[in-house]
Amino acid sequence: MRWKKISDAVIRRLPLYLRVLDDLASDPNTQLISSQELGVRAGVGPALVRKDLAWFGEFGKQGVGYEVKYLRDELRRILNLDEEIRIAIVGAGSLGAAFARYTHKRYADDSSFNLNVVALFDNDPEKIGKDIDHIPVFAAAELQERVKELGVQMAIIAVPAEYAQSAADELVKAGVKAILNFAPVKLSVPEGVHMASADLSLELQRLAYYLRD
Amino acid sequence: MRWKKISDAVIRRLPLYLRVLDDLASDPNTQLISSQELGVRAGVGPALVRKDLAWFGEFGKQGVGYEVKYLRDELRRILNLDEEIRIAIVGAGSLGAAFARYTHKRYADDSSFNLNVVALFDNDPEKIGKDIDHIPVFAAAELQERVKELGVQMAIIAVPAEYAQSAADELVKAGVKAILNFAPVKLSVPEGVHMASADLSLELQRLAYYLRD
Repeated sequence: MRWKKISDAVIRRLPLYLRVLDDLASDPNTQLISSQELGVRAGVGPALVRKDLAWFGEFGKQGVGYEVKYLRDELRRILNLDEEIRIAIVGAGSLGAAFARYTHKRYADDSSFNLNVVALFDNDPEKIGKDIDHIPVFAAAELQERVKELGVQMAIIAVPAEYAQSAADELVKAGVKAILNFAPVKLSVPEGVHMASADLSLELQRLAYYLRD
Repeated sequence: MRWKKISDAVIRRLPLYLRVLDDLASDPNTQLISSQELGVRAGVGPALVRKDLAWFGEFGKQGVGYEVKYLRDELRRILNLDEEIRIAIVGAGSLGAAFARYTHKRYADDSSFNLNVVALFDNDPEKIGKDIDHIPVFAAAELQERVKELGVQMAIIAVPAEYAQSAADELVKAGVKAILNFAPVKLSVPEGVHMASADLSLELQRLAYYLRD
């Protein structure tokens, strides 16, 4: 590992910067960006932009700013997005299928979106053996075998809460090191496996607090 | 507003506590919970649990802990989840439709999940006038009128990035004060309107960083 001690709060902001730079890179008139402008567009204070990027090297010049394409390529490399990352989705219900379609479309439309969904898993015999937008649906029982065979590095859990922990256990056994969990439940994984939660209901409940401001 | 100065970091943890208490409330053998146990189950340090809850009142007794059902009801009240909150989803594509189904199912199955999706909006004539799991799909042009008529307080944006800002503008004009945004773009809203981002690709890009630990 290259930058062991960098806080996750810093890592969380890198994709925000990358998005701004990806947008700008297609504009031939914008070759440089100041930390001020990058901060405004990413929704981050400019001092924090400079501090975050300084963890990884010297990317800009005082008074000149950052070279858009260079910084974009560096961020992509830092985030391991310079090579294809293969993803499996566990659960081919409406949520799993929607994310498969969504991610597949992003991958097809955007040459810099290197996240590629290559497999879905389900235990419904009606779904197994079919495909969703050309992504095959495999039996959940084949998960470990298929994940290894297909070189899956990352997974999305989109099963009901009661099956989510066993899905995570299977993924960990298969060697998956990064999991995005959509199930409304907290999952335990061993050290070295990274989780992110994309729990819609927690976000909605938080927003509800602000309704009677 | 009752507790004006409370940080959003505190508010974000309340739904985690509520989830633990909701699970425990159905178990007749568990009437009390310590801050230690609540913290472990919610994935939050026990000192922080006590500190967070103390913002809102005296809910526990030293050495005894919190009464599960009482604290659950108080948290539901604090989060405004003691009454139905009506939600609209803008965008009835695969993502919008999946969330409509998901949220509708939660609302039907779980009597304490007071978030009710009552409308979808789209500009596709093929979709307008139909429904998804009994939730009607209206024309995007009718958004302001329908939102007011149906008493919608919260909205989910599930349209492509290029339409997301205008969807947000329409929602704000209609008086919606809380918006969950699934589009991969940062949106501007006036002060007093609260946003949450549920951006799948940002989470996946963050996780990618950890793949080569």
